[in-house]
Amino acid sequence: MTKPMLIRGGILLSMLDEEVPYDGDLLIEGDRITRIGDRGHFTNLPDGMDEIDATGCVVMPGLINTHTHTPMTIMRSTSDNLGGPSPDRKPSIPPDQDWRRDLTPEDIYRSSFLAIAEMIRTGTTTFVDMYHDMDQVARAVIESGIRAALGWEIITFRVDPDEWLPHDEEIARRTFEECAHFASDWHGKGDGRVMALIAPHETSTCHEPWLSRSAQLAGELGLGITIHLAEGEMEVEYCAECYGLTPVEVAEKAGILNHRVIGAHSLHLTDADIQILAGADYSAAACLGAYLKMGKTVTPVPKLLRAGVNVGMGTDSAETNNNLSLWDEIALNATLHGFLAQDQSLISAREALQMATVYGARALGMENQLGTLEVGKKADLIIVDMDRPHLHPWEGALIGNLVYAANGHDVRDVIIDGKLIMRDRVIETFNEGEIMERAEQSVRKLRERFGLPHRYHSP
Amino acid sequence: MTKPMLIRGGILLSMLDEEVPYDGDLLIEGDRITRIGDRGHFTNLPDGMDEIDATGCVVMPGLINTHTHTPMTIMRSTSDNLGGPSPDRKPSIPPDQDWRRDLTPEDIYRSSFLAIAEMIRTGTTTFVDMYHDMDQVARAVIESGIRAALGWEIITFRVDPDEWLPHDEEIARRTFEECAHFASDWHGKGDGRVMALIAPHETSTCHEPWLSRSAQLAGELGLGITIHLAEGEMEVEYCAECYGLTPVEVAEKAGILNHRVIGAHSLHLTDADIQILAGADYSAAACLGAYLKMGKTVTPVPKLLRAGVNVGMGTDSAETNNNLSLWDEIALNATLHGFLAQDQSLISAREALQMATVYGARALGMENQLGTLEVGKKADLIIVDMDRPHLHPWEGALIGNLVYAANGHDVRDVIIDGKLIMRDRVIETFNEGEIMERAEQSVRKLRERFGLPHRYHSP
Repeated sequence: MTKPMLIRGGILLSMLDEEVPYDGDLLIEGDRITRIGDRGHFTNLPDGMDEIDATGCVVMPGLINTHTHTPMTIMRSTSDNLGGPSPDRKPSIPPDQDWRRDLTPEDIYRSSFLAIAEMIRTGTTTFVDMYHDMDQVARAVIESGIRAALGWEIITFRVDPDEWLPHDEEIARRTFEECAHFASDWHGKGDGRVMALIAPHETSTCHEPWLSRSAQLAGELGLGITIHLAEGEMEVEYCAECYGLTPVEVAEKAGILNHRVIGAHSLHLTDADIQILAGADYSAAACLGAYLKMGKTVTPVPKLLRAGVNVGMGTDSAETNNNLSLWDEIALNATLHGFLAQDQSLISAREALQMATVYGARALGMENQLGTLEVGKKADLIIVDMDRPHLHPWEGALIGNLVYAANGHDVRDVIIDGKLIMRDRVIETFNEGEIMERAEQSVRKLRERFGLPHRYHSP
Repeated sequence: MTKPMLIRGGILLSMLDEEVPYDGDLLIEGDRITRIGDRGHFTNLPDGMDEIDATGCVVMPGLINTHTHTPMTIMRSTSDNLGGPSPDRKPSIPPDQDWRRDLTPEDIYRSSFLAIAEMIRTGTTTFVDMYHDMDQVARAVIESGIRAALGWEIITFRVDPDEWLPHDEEIARRTFEECAHFASDWHGKGDGRVMALIAPHETSTCHEPWLSRSAQLAGELGLGITIHLAEGEMEVEYCAECYGLTPVEVAEKAGILNHRVIGAHSLHLTDADIQILAGADYSAAACLGAYLKMGKTVTPVPKLLRAGVNVGMGTDSAETNNNLSLWDEIALNATLHGFLAQDQSLISAREALQMATVYGARALGMENQLGTLEVGKKADLIIVDMDRPHLHPWEGALIGNLVYAANGHDVRDVIIDGKLIMRDRVIETFNEGEIMERAEQSVRKLRERFGLPHRYHSP
């Protein structure tokens, strides 16, 4: 049984509409926020509380990363500036570092755990992930204390940048079964911290009938869906050629949009597509950092929001980004859309913070559980240390400082499901040094297999 | 007399051409790097050395910020998302927070010192600044231990977003004298850490004959120049109307380009302008973060570099950016140009790092003193802690990790002019808490004068 926890004297940023942040205290009992009020006014507090002094800090909801691939973290910085035209989101890992087929389940566990360490450090309390061997990711989620929605990808074409092999019925069937087993085995585990999603890879890589079967499976298991949607020009062309439809129309026809969907990227959308999405329980996951680095265009976030389509933020994988901090995404969403459209009022600084919190919760269908500081909600929250030179002065500048000047390292404490996961920048639930060293071992082993030299002493 | 200092076992990233980073040791005596070599191979080391273990860290040249306004740091986050069309770099501070005319010399000292604290923490060892009351900035530079090139701005129009008052001859003359006095009083102070520049504000705000006189003064004192050049559409229109020339042509005609010049922004350039700049000792200072937030366009960095014009990085002020970390600029330069041109090979990750180091040194005419790790150069260097989750794995990914994943908080130690300014993330030369509190006091006083409430408890 976790001790009750009192967070004293922080600036409470609830992320509720029309709020005015104020100096306050917040009480956590079990996995819930049970009291919120002015600084120093609580009486009859429970015995044996853990107390956290948040003076000089902002207390706010934990951040929600709506799209990443944690098993790819050990490929960080392997596909940088490869030259030539922008790859439009095609995988661009050089062949001698394309370890994707060589990853063992243990590599995936290590890679995912490394990603989780980075996410916790930078204030992410929930992430959405899709890859294979997701039981390894679930294991890391359980052990680390983070919250995640995980989907075992259903790919029925083998992904290869240059070669699209014909569909192999047997492999498709097996992948589909793995996905189904993963979902029924893991959904709700870790006191509910692990949530399963159904994850058809993309409309051109999970082709019919497997797209429709994915939708059907989501219905049978009562789960949401995550999918890459309208990600690349190749997908648009494929859908036009095979179905005479846009990717969104393909997803609609397959029944995908009858369920709650997180659609990673959502880049190439027609106005009609946006109308379809506005009528569904659909959230786009915008990954601006990855687009700047490897893309040609960005998710039309202001347009989607105005049309009534929810948008969360994602980091995408460390191979394309190359980091998993949502603070970079917050700053980019508050600036890049306005820069491209020459209208800086399109996304306010505050709305960028909402995208990372409230809108992320909505994407998961958990707006009643996560995303704001409210009595009765899950205690997933972060304490951001504002008493640092780059975050002064803070009178009248709180939101601007958080959005444009703060970054992941300003997160001092992280609480997930009522448990203190990081305290004073020290992770309490696992040995971070061991996580880093194990990931490095996996990479050294993979590099050896590919004949690549070791370059430096171990840290 | 400073003790000799041995930096042991870091990964040496010299920033020299064609380098392969390697595990090495580096010795500092006085203000210079005196030995560099393989890890553990030095013999006959001096007695009484200070030793720094840099295992698991990158040792690299300190970063050079070629354009900022440190006196504006206390206006951080006052001009965010003000709505409407992008202001194209016009000041956009709301009237009730436009304290620029109300800043006392003491406010400027405090604001500048706050900026310096942030810059040291994020690995900047030299900065270029232009504002008024620059003696206050010089004072903060001397006391903090940082290196800076400072220009007292020569403005002969009073800057007002909506109203351009006629030139006041008496004020112009006085400003010019202040600038000249500042330059002769402060150049070379602090063991050479303070360098003076002549700083005509901009071609439309420092009009003739003051632009020509600025060039003349630079010649008389043997100093470089810094100026905002081709920054906004308003400047381009003004120059066309008054002189029938582009801003670059105006600067050329005034003799500005006969000297070493750092031209902040350099946004609106014709091909002919670029040819003129390529023939001069000119460096552009690109401030991408500020453009994303408030601008319409970016410095054409790839085009300038290909034409042979040097380009450094700047953060601009905390009012427009809103932070002073060059790590954000490094990542933006490695991605944004490629994104906008749909060609990710335009600026390599490594060249982005060069812009922040070697090219910055060149902008200052100090390429023989700063910008690389070489025996005989000034010991201005930083130690970046790579043993953190977001910077693993690092085998084969060093440059990518530094450029796309690292940020200012990964800087662990900072050495400037042979002195240890920050050790293990603790600043040794001044009391950082006091600096933050004093800046906050200045803001509270200014807010009171403008009738704005205090909102939160002091940190």
